[in-house]
Amino acid sequence: MIYTKEDIEKLDRISRLKIINSATGIKPANLIGTINKENQTNLAIFSSVVHLGSNPPLLGFISRPRTTDAGHTYHNIIENGCYTINHIHPEFIKNAHYTSAKFHVDVSEFNRCNLSEEYINDFIAPFVAESTFKMGMRFVEAIDIKINNTVLVVGEIEHLILPDTSIIAGDVDLEAANSVGISGLNSYYSLKKIGNFPYVRVKEVPEF
Amino acid sequence: MIYTKEDIEKLDRISRLKIINSATGIKPANLIGTINKENQTNLAIFSSVVHLGSNPPLLGFISRPRTTDAGHTYHNIIENGCYTINHIHPEFIKNAHYTSAKFHVDVSEFNRCNLSEEYINDFIAPFVAESTFKMGMRFVEAIDIKINNTVLVVGEIEHLILPDTSIIAGDVDLEAANSVGISGLNSYYSLKKIGNFPYVRVKEVPEF
Repeated sequence: MIYTKEDIEKLDRISRLKIINSATGIKPANLIGTINKENQTNLAIFSSVVHLGSNPPLLGFISRPRTTDAGHTYHNIIENGCYTINHIHPEFIKNAHYTSAKFHVDVSEFNRCNLSEEYINDFIAPFVAESTFKMGMRFVEAIDIKINNTVLVVGEIEHLILPDTSIIAGDVDLEAANSVGISGLNSYYSLKKIGNFPYVRVKEVPEF
Repeated sequence: MIYTKEDIEKLDRISRLKIINSATGIKPANLIGTINKENQTNLAIFSSVVHLGSNPPLLGFISRPRTTDAGHTYHNIIENGCYTINHIHPEFIKNAHYTSAKFHVDVSEFNRCNLSEEYINDFIAPFVAESTFKMGMRFVEAIDIKINNTVLVVGEIEHLILPDTSIIAGDVDLEAANSVGISGLNSYYSLKKIGNFPYVRVKEVPEF
């Protein structure tokens, strides 16, 4: 099937959302945990976490428009300067998915979706206890993407927790870590490792 | 295993690269195809393609620092205003991986890594013929991420090609599309669909 720009514009809103949200390929499945100044926690699923650099260790994610209706995640990050990113595992994909409901600010998705808050090393933002691979993040900056009024939220990893069993031959194995991926808005995938290749130097490229 | 910020700083460069590049979870595996004004093509693997919005249909990816040593991909995109994003499938993960070598500008990775150029609908940038899920992208803007001198390259989807068989019950199925994911710098994963949930309205959230 081939869609031109005009075909995409003519799609109904839901069909367009489903197709364009799948276009990148598989997306990482993470829950972002935050807390506001009144100690109200919040938890929300994000599929847009992206690696920005390793030194310093920086990750980004895309947040919806900065309006009064903006998500509680972004508001809490600006308020407190910290957040957690927690991998989603198959055992709680349903709980994680339903954090995407637009609950009132007084409702903690931890409680409503039956996931457990965990506090590690005096880090103020709540981790997800059920997640075995998670990070405490320090907010660095919010970069405007003006064309569609979204924001790239940049943060630095301050705490990194991962299962010992996920490190295989010096590398992180996401199948062993039991991490999952997302396509579109509502489909979840498990991972099966199918290949591993060395860091590439020009002289070592095989003949194809 | 728990790493603090100080532990991460103390890691040797390769260990840090491997771990921090896996921290987001699974990443999409794409080849970006470009061409310069001398009609020299270029193909490079990227795991940082991220969905920015569906209307207009915008995707981003992270490019290395804007220096004279910058990748040919970024240079060609600025020169021509267009590029292609092509999903990687299991049959050519090895070919795709080796496009990451720093070949001389006169070497086309299409040729060196045995992948085929394909031109669709007069779009100037080359698609990867072996990929069944691919997009022709129009460059929109490059947004500086100053803290580590990287760039978020923003583009709009102008052509979207995907296999009819990947659309199941109105949704894109990336297992059926045979798309793959990446962790770290060199591990590849196939996908198995394990769950599908509806768009969430607060009133429809089940009890957990």
